[in-house]
Amino acid sequence: MTEKVITAAFLVIGDEILSGRTKDKNIRFLASYLTEIGIDLNEVRIVPDVQDKIVEAVNALRAEYTYVFTSGGIGPTHDDITADAIAKAFNVPIGLDPRAFKLLEDHYGAENFTQARQRMARLPEGSDLIENKVSIAPGFKIENVHVMAGVPAIMQAMVDAVAPTLDTGLKMLSKAIDAPLPESRIATDLGEIQKKFPETSIGSYPQSKDGVFSTQIVVRCRSNVVLEQTSAAVQAAVETAKTKYL
Amino acid sequence: MTEKVITAAFLVIGDEILSGRTKDKNIRFLASYLTEIGIDLNEVRIVPDVQDKIVEAVNALRAEYTYVFTSGGIGPTHDDITADAIAKAFNVPIGLDPRAFKLLEDHYGAENFTQARQRMARLPEGSDLIENKVSIAPGFKIENVHVMAGVPAIMQAMVDAVAPTLDTGLKMLSKAIDAPLPESRIATDLGEIQKKFPETSIGSYPQSKDGVFSTQIVVRCRSNVVLEQTSAAVQAAVETAKTKYL
Repeated sequence: MTEKVITAAFLVIGDEILSGRTKDKNIRFLASYLTEIGIDLNEVRIVPDVQDKIVEAVNALRAEYTYVFTSGGIGPTHDDITADAIAKAFNVPIGLDPRAFKLLEDHYGAENFTQARQRMARLPEGSDLIENKVSIAPGFKIENVHVMAGVPAIMQAMVDAVAPTLDTGLKMLSKAIDAPLPESRIATDLGEIQKKFPETSIGSYPQSKDGVFSTQIVVRCRSNVVLEQTSAAVQAAVETAKTKYL
Repeated sequence: MTEKVITAAFLVIGDEILSGRTKDKNIRFLASYLTEIGIDLNEVRIVPDVQDKIVEAVNALRAEYTYVFTSGGIGPTHDDITADAIAKAFNVPIGLDPRAFKLLEDHYGAENFTQARQRMARLPEGSDLIENKVSIAPGFKIENVHVMAGVPAIMQAMVDAVAPTLDTGLKMLSKAIDAPLPESRIATDLGEIQKKFPETSIGSYPQSKDGVFSTQIVVRCRSNVVLEQTSAAVQAAVETAKTKYL
């Protein structure tokens, strides 16, 4: 079986996330979505509305991962600088895109299609449109970079529009085992199980609730058979530790 | 007035955030906390539990910002590789730290201070401890990098422990103005106000609720006088737009 791995990075653009004023809602959405369709989200970056920072991040990420997704900064205001930054990253001109122009002109009506709104039709040369069912103003795709809105409802609609065009790999499967013990009580066993099943990734996540520590162990693997074997070994180790320490 | 700007980056380490299984709770906490004490959070990265990725990110960020904070990967299990990665990033040896060893031995008792737990006393050479009031196992600081736990309650306690040691700058002040209009209706005015007050940063954040678009405009500035002048100009522009379009 060929194990084709498709990777992605997500670049969140926006001062408001970095100042703590706005809580990001897009990272977990995209992380879960990509995992579900067989794409591994391998890196996330959050950068401010500063052209150099966007250019640097886009160029680093697009060279390293199969796909890059961005959110934020594609609206009509002066602080929406993502399209210009992407054009600079790809070293291509930016200008009014006739397809985006027509979509927006039809939507607003010629008399209400102000200069500010026309700004949303400015795209880097060589872009394809990403449909926006919520508020029309499109996102765009250039090479492996998908540029989307930051408003969660619009971002999610754009991800839905993009998903069918993406190459996907074998889905990463996972299984969670809860242990009512601090992770140090099962750490040695988990290390040995990880060595025995190197094609899995075993994560151990300590949790504390009202001062009581427990652990969630998550086994991840692309093969269901190996996932089941590994999970059974973890479950057995947890049972032994419970007998010993509870 | 000297405007001392102190910057920071936050590196979140953990497969569980990237797979969407766990929702990050630390980014917004740290973003708000740093803003409050006069440190600008300028970048966030989320990377998986992969040594090379951690090393690369730590080295890029510590060269660029006043401070780096990390969360995750400092527990007792095989997937806790942050301390080793930090040692590699700084090219220093890692070994049992006598101070951390004693703290943990006193806490667990010699008979329960297992090898797995001793793993949490392994620190890069040259580190200082960061106190952990919640579960004792310390974080650590090496040069400008602060390495903290991923469990939110512990991470927050560590931030509290670290904060008094940090150099802080003039606090970034902000004021939000709500406009019951889509942002394209005030975009031109906002652009002009931004040009008139270049020392501010004016952000425009579209929101949609039940299909109705509104905008939150956030003015940020380190001078209270300029903040008030700029906010007044924005408020006036919003009132004019309301008269015109509502």
